[in-house]
Amino acid sequence: MLSVLSKAQAVQTVLDKTASLSLSIENIELSEALGRTLAADVVAAENIPAFDRTTVDGYAVIAADTFGAGSAVPAQLEIVGEIHMGENADFSLKSGQCVRISTGGMLPQGADAAVMVEHTDSEEGLCLIYQSAAPYENVTRKGEDICCGEKVLKKGSVITAAQIAVLAALGVRQVSVFCKPVLAIISTGDEIVQEKPRLGQIRDINTDLLAAAVRQAGCEVYCYGAVKDEREAIDTALEACLARADAVLISGGSSAGTKDMTVSIIEARGEVCFHGIAMKPGKPTIFGMVAGKPVFGLPGHPLAAYFVFRLIVRTYIAARLSQAPDMPHKSGVLAVNIPSNHGREEYLCIQYNEEGAVVPVHTKSGVISVLSAAQGFIKIERNAEGLLKGTVVDIYAL
Amino acid sequence: MLSVLSKAQAVQTVLDKTASLSLSIENIELSEALGRTLAADVVAAENIPAFDRTTVDGYAVIAADTFGAGSAVPAQLEIVGEIHMGENADFSLKSGQCVRISTGGMLPQGADAAVMVEHTDSEEGLCLIYQSAAPYENVTRKGEDICCGEKVLKKGSVITAAQIAVLAALGVRQVSVFCKPVLAIISTGDEIVQEKPRLGQIRDINTDLLAAAVRQAGCEVYCYGAVKDEREAIDTALEACLARADAVLISGGSSAGTKDMTVSIIEARGEVCFHGIAMKPGKPTIFGMVAGKPVFGLPGHPLAAYFVFRLIVRTYIAARLSQAPDMPHKSGVLAVNIPSNHGREEYLCIQYNEEGAVVPVHTKSGVISVLSAAQGFIKIERNAEGLLKGTVVDIYAL
Repeated sequence: MLSVLSKAQAVQTVLDKTASLSLSIENIELSEALGRTLAADVVAAENIPAFDRTTVDGYAVIAADTFGAGSAVPAQLEIVGEIHMGENADFSLKSGQCVRISTGGMLPQGADAAVMVEHTDSEEGLCLIYQSAAPYENVTRKGEDICCGEKVLKKGSVITAAQIAVLAALGVRQVSVFCKPVLAIISTGDEIVQEKPRLGQIRDINTDLLAAAVRQAGCEVYCYGAVKDEREAIDTALEACLARADAVLISGGSSAGTKDMTVSIIEARGEVCFHGIAMKPGKPTIFGMVAGKPVFGLPGHPLAAYFVFRLIVRTYIAARLSQAPDMPHKSGVLAVNIPSNHGREEYLCIQYNEEGAVVPVHTKSGVISVLSAAQGFIKIERNAEGLLKGTVVDIYAL
Repeated sequence: MLSVLSKAQAVQTVLDKTASLSLSIENIELSEALGRTLAADVVAAENIPAFDRTTVDGYAVIAADTFGAGSAVPAQLEIVGEIHMGENADFSLKSGQCVRISTGGMLPQGADAAVMVEHTDSEEGLCLIYQSAAPYENVTRKGEDICCGEKVLKKGSVITAAQIAVLAALGVRQVSVFCKPVLAIISTGDEIVQEKPRLGQIRDINTDLLAAAVRQAGCEVYCYGAVKDEREAIDTALEACLARADAVLISGGSSAGTKDMTVSIIEARGEVCFHGIAMKPGKPTIFGMVAGKPVFGLPGHPLAAYFVFRLIVRTYIAARLSQAPDMPHKSGVLAVNIPSNHGREEYLCIQYNEEGAVVPVHTKSGVISVLSAAQGFIKIERNAEGLLKGTVVDIYAL
């Protein structure tokens, strides 16, 4: 049996062993891009806006023509026409001239400001301007929003609605994204059934839980189903999953000896990189490489399986997708003391109480109800003896 | 023209006018349920676990038989067998007896505790127990995780991986969810084009932006496309959208007079409920009911269109789906003073600086780059004259 690693060592081992694995890239329609991960930086190929635009309804002017204007001494400018929305203003404004313009309209050459209609009067082809305009007042300059050549989106970004707007503005209708990694799930245990359980049996929870978590992490999932704790059955399942997936999750049955069986199956087909992480929950985690693909042995306990997925497997997924590392979601203040002296990094499901302070999800040994009730989780360092009431803690999203 | 409402009045009007509209319900497979919204409470039809289970590898005992046991005076119990994982323990333990058991195994009748194998020795059919066990020590009792008859999930919940685990544990393979509302999008403006823009024109951004936002809110989207600011064209688009969708979003062109055209089109076909909200951005928002369906007139400016979607349209969607109202995401400390004296509720895109404090997204008049760079937004109350550096502000997710 290999030595137990710290969580940081375990994550580093997974990242090192899988560093050379790369995902395929595909080009997809912009309309399908929400939530996918960019496979390359996006550099603006044009200016946004592509021309100087007004931000008000009124008159395009040469700012210098309005200097000194006020309500007592308006500037008088000749109205030489109107620029309609969407029209190319392909003429030059000369000193002493102005032109009618609507919000978003293109400034003609020479014009360098716009005056709101509320600060003007017009009669017989003349415009009276009651307020001086500074250069580029009420104007969005060419390239001011996005500048041609600027890196606007980074490789590894999970595409949001706002980023879709950026791509639409630039006319990018096809987006280069990483193909979704495929993760396979095997749920093992002599007591685990997918049909109605008899007394002494329980339903398979981990297949559905992990499948949803895998999808939420932006991956495809292949569910092999529940398998008894028999060497040949698990080995056959592993082989089938390796043929279909980029990585395999084997959530272990809880019977004694099963974990060693998983270790020995992985060893027979490839390499076991570690067995055991000094974290709670999640101690009996196994990680190996088989046929160049990562195989994760997760605890059978659903809460533990979920945390190992969240903290270890998701780090692997994020690295493959070039995503930024996991950050705390927010911080909160503990409403109670939390004891801990386990000598392993501990992860605890939390809720907010009525005052908005942080409390652990109350439970004796509930499993599924804890995870379902949790509004996030906190980490207690390996050497901490616990956390005192009033401590400000980082809270991570589940 | 109708009077300008406060944002709260606008939201209330939308909710009142659409209160009687209900969504259809469909039953879907549990594997498809992630992110969908529950259409009914889920009440547990069984106990989880369905039987008393051990949480350790060791021996199932009658706790009273171990009282007073210690390393010097171990309790001696007769080992009467072993309970295998998944097996129904259909016999009764008598005083003086114990049985081998693995983590997750079913306790036989009479047994009320489990002793870890580490605290025992066994020889010739006898088990020596070196530590006294309290009643129900190392045991998860029947119904302790979820109790039969307990309401485990609430109508209106957006289904998470953890909730899928709860449903899987209870054997619920079909889930009753709300059908996704269909929202149609029309983007209007003489300067808006979907092909490569000529000088003076700009690309349609709002169709893609709003479509992504609609999908993210758990709805289906129908994109009508870009339409010129012509009464007949917009009216035809509205009619086509009403035939296909539960609600219609018309993002207005920015040309003067367009908003009044949208108002008049809605008026001709139904009722305009308000035109104008005292919020920034988002002032020129229109809301009406046509053929029993809500029609939202959004500003043409993409940032403003997005905020109106986020604050008004999403409230309508959430109400239809029985979802809980929008809550701040977290709080933060302002790194700078933020002036504001607009007399309207103001919404501002924010980022975190290197120290984790909150700063507005720096911009002169950028539009798309602001939204894309934002990590959330804050609200400045209508009567506030701004916010001082150091103020703790609520931050909402975009």
